[in-house]
Amino acid sequence: MNQPRELDASVLDELRALLGDRVTTSRGVREHHGKDESSFPSALPDAVAFPLSTEEARDIVNICRRRRLPVIPYGVGTSIEGHVLATSGGVCIDFSRMNKVLRVNVEDMDVTVQPGVTRKQLNEEIRHTGLFFPVDPGADATIGGMASTRASGTNAVRYGTMRENVLSLTVVTADGRIMRTSRRSRKSAAGYDLTRLFVGAEGTLGVITEVTVRLYAIPEAISAAVCSFKDMAGAVDTVIQTLQSGIPIARSEALCATTMRAINAYNKSAYKEQPTLWLEFHGTEAGVVEQAEQVQEIAREHGGEGFEWATKPEDRNRLWSARHQAYFAGLQLRPGSRAISTDVCVPISRLTECIVETMRDIEQASMPIPLFGHVGDGNFHCMILVRPDSAEDLAEARAFNERVVNRALAMEGTCTGEHGIGLGKIASLKKELGEAVDLMVAIKRTLDPDNIMNPGKVVPLAG
Amino acid sequence: MNQPRELDASVLDELRALLGDRVTTSRGVREHHGKDESSFPSALPDAVAFPLSTEEARDIVNICRRRRLPVIPYGVGTSIEGHVLATSGGVCIDFSRMNKVLRVNVEDMDVTVQPGVTRKQLNEEIRHTGLFFPVDPGADATIGGMASTRASGTNAVRYGTMRENVLSLTVVTADGRIMRTSRRSRKSAAGYDLTRLFVGAEGTLGVITEVTVRLYAIPEAISAAVCSFKDMAGAVDTVIQTLQSGIPIARSEALCATTMRAINAYNKSAYKEQPTLWLEFHGTEAGVVEQAEQVQEIAREHGGEGFEWATKPEDRNRLWSARHQAYFAGLQLRPGSRAISTDVCVPISRLTECIVETMRDIEQASMPIPLFGHVGDGNFHCMILVRPDSAEDLAEARAFNERVVNRALAMEGTCTGEHGIGLGKIASLKKELGEAVDLMVAIKRTLDPDNIMNPGKVVPLAG
Repeated sequence: MNQPRELDASVLDELRALLGDRVTTSRGVREHHGKDESSFPSALPDAVAFPLSTEEARDIVNICRRRRLPVIPYGVGTSIEGHVLATSGGVCIDFSRMNKVLRVNVEDMDVTVQPGVTRKQLNEEIRHTGLFFPVDPGADATIGGMASTRASGTNAVRYGTMRENVLSLTVVTADGRIMRTSRRSRKSAAGYDLTRLFVGAEGTLGVITEVTVRLYAIPEAISAAVCSFKDMAGAVDTVIQTLQSGIPIARSEALCATTMRAINAYNKSAYKEQPTLWLEFHGTEAGVVEQAEQVQEIAREHGGEGFEWATKPEDRNRLWSARHQAYFAGLQLRPGSRAISTDVCVPISRLTECIVETMRDIEQASMPIPLFGHVGDGNFHCMILVRPDSAEDLAEARAFNERVVNRALAMEGTCTGEHGIGLGKIASLKKELGEAVDLMVAIKRTLDPDNIMNPGKVVPLAG
Repeated sequence: MNQPRELDASVLDELRALLGDRVTTSRGVREHHGKDESSFPSALPDAVAFPLSTEEARDIVNICRRRRLPVIPYGVGTSIEGHVLATSGGVCIDFSRMNKVLRVNVEDMDVTVQPGVTRKQLNEEIRHTGLFFPVDPGADATIGGMASTRASGTNAVRYGTMRENVLSLTVVTADGRIMRTSRRSRKSAAGYDLTRLFVGAEGTLGVITEVTVRLYAIPEAISAAVCSFKDMAGAVDTVIQTLQSGIPIARSEALCATTMRAINAYNKSAYKEQPTLWLEFHGTEAGVVEQAEQVQEIAREHGGEGFEWATKPEDRNRLWSARHQAYFAGLQLRPGSRAISTDVCVPISRLTECIVETMRDIEQASMPIPLFGHVGDGNFHCMILVRPDSAEDLAEARAFNERVVNRALAMEGTCTGEHGIGLGKIASLKKELGEAVDLMVAIKRTLDPDNIMNPGKVVPLAG
């Protein structure tokens, strides 16, 4: 995409003086950092820097700022909307060496981490405390990346997304200063909500160098189940009625028959290849039994056929690990393909209708399109499996995605529930929020006047 | 405070052409709108306008904008930080006639209201749906005002504050445009979080004219209890341990002995005049019993003496209505007084220490200072009862408040958990967040370049 360019030698000199061999222009490293899990073509940064501290990250930003060079923060590259692509070159800040859990506050049920800590690493490191961090996108993403993209996952229906779970951030702003966006108290009415402004800004307003997130007590009892349905409508309606009954379900994922087939092939499992709900209940021993009985009753009313239970931790882990691999399992339905993933989210009253119409759309498609999602949130994904070199596939995928987005927008939904805007959804954002996007542009221009912070993402800047 | 001024006749002509007799310059009406529940001196607007629609509110903003006249949104005036005081004159927009519940989405568990709807009115109007809106500041505030100040209350430990419960807003911006900040889906990763930017902006970035909030299923079972302790530390520690055990308590309020005395006098009740916890449990019949047993056990370990239960709705309502009246009951401890209320919020691990030190401070004070708060959130209030005309009282209160704020800040807390910055806490905000306040100033200057939106509140603008 972008042409290989020479980085001004003085930039490299300064970066090397700061970082020694923790900065590189090697083609291999740049290639690794110039792509993500999306279908966008690679776009390499001119250099990759590996800071060890907030202060080093700030110094990198300042070196770039003085030359108006782009700065692209990088976690582990699991974005699927092109967030880390260096479409205008510049310096990629790789946070993999800032991967320390800095401070676990057990009594306060929060933890402060460096941005390179991944969600699985975090849960490993705090396991002994009896607490856990619930937000779980499919990939083992970094907490910094998850904060930047306002990520969520299968637990959001009960525990919220990164929007609800980030308490405070340390950021390096475009003018090269280090700031804390808020204090560590659970709530605050102190001024504008800068924390929420940086959560989901996708690196376009500044670089996140520390994240404080909420933790939760590991429930006394956890029980997971799988239940199959004749059609997706029955599965989705079961979840809707469960939520309306006030049952505090912890996870409620719906997967289409194609997705179940992909999961079986990928995991050598033997789930029924029908529309399926994957559920999880958290609570006390008695509470979990009570919730499960209520939901079984609701499922039966909607054509749910039998519940397969997983109560032992190893069985539950196997089950959810299969669910988290749906993306990679899906890719195997068409070897060599890349996925373009839709990500709409609608009010749950419209979800059944939105999914049923989309399933009809899928029937017309020339490629396999597994559909699955976080139905408790109204959010689902269609993985459009394209051959990366096929212009026809890409055109068909683009048209399909646009139909799904338009359908969701017509139902008061959003073009992206959890993947973010990145490179590809800027026009959809405009369609979704209209003139409100002008406010985002104004904020971007104010906080990053030279447009060095992950340029080309989220906001439509003219020129 | 501000001098009576003549409003440019052409402004009034335009407002009258737009609103007819729904705009007034009558001294009585202006006086009513130029004060709130704080101890700040009155500051009257030059005119008060009563729009019926978002479009009318926009037209009022445009009339003011062209003359750089301040615009002050007004709900029911229950702010206690001077938010509605017209310290630079201008036009007060009173939303009392925009008090319609516009659309209840039972399946989606959300509701869209005009900003003048009060929280009690909302719950009355949706009672038949089996849903409720949990956020409950002491006063019967408007939903618009609550969104503007990022309000919370006794339920926040379980259901969150306005930050977590506002799904979307319609706002009139300083440049006179109507915008929707987000779609109605439960989650979204579409661009900067404008909803959260306006929630808590206290009217300084724009005027809220519609609010969509989350609703919750009325629990199958609710049970409330009162339990007294020898000291505040025992009460607070009980709540901390409850939260750490993952017990999903719905309300957990601690009240000092002085507050209990005030409540007894005000309500002719006979609660023990000792430090007391007020608790509420929400869940299924079995779940509530289970939670209550667990918490009773924890309370016993911390010196809790007996539980008085209220399970019948009328008994519970009486109990919580007494709690909500704590503020007004407190005022009666010193007839003729006004309250200056502290509002700090700290990580709960520091809460006991913060409250114990503050109780010692209270012992030295010359006036009664009841202390009570939302201990599950780490948030508590000291009502410093001052004679409004006494310079000594005001000086003592100011010094007391500053000590409490400094104590909280030293414990990683915030100067305001739920009341907001308003007029009086701008210096504290700076102390709390340092250079991050510069970002707030930059955003304010960008979105409201002429500083017409509730000027003088929240952000420290030079000149």
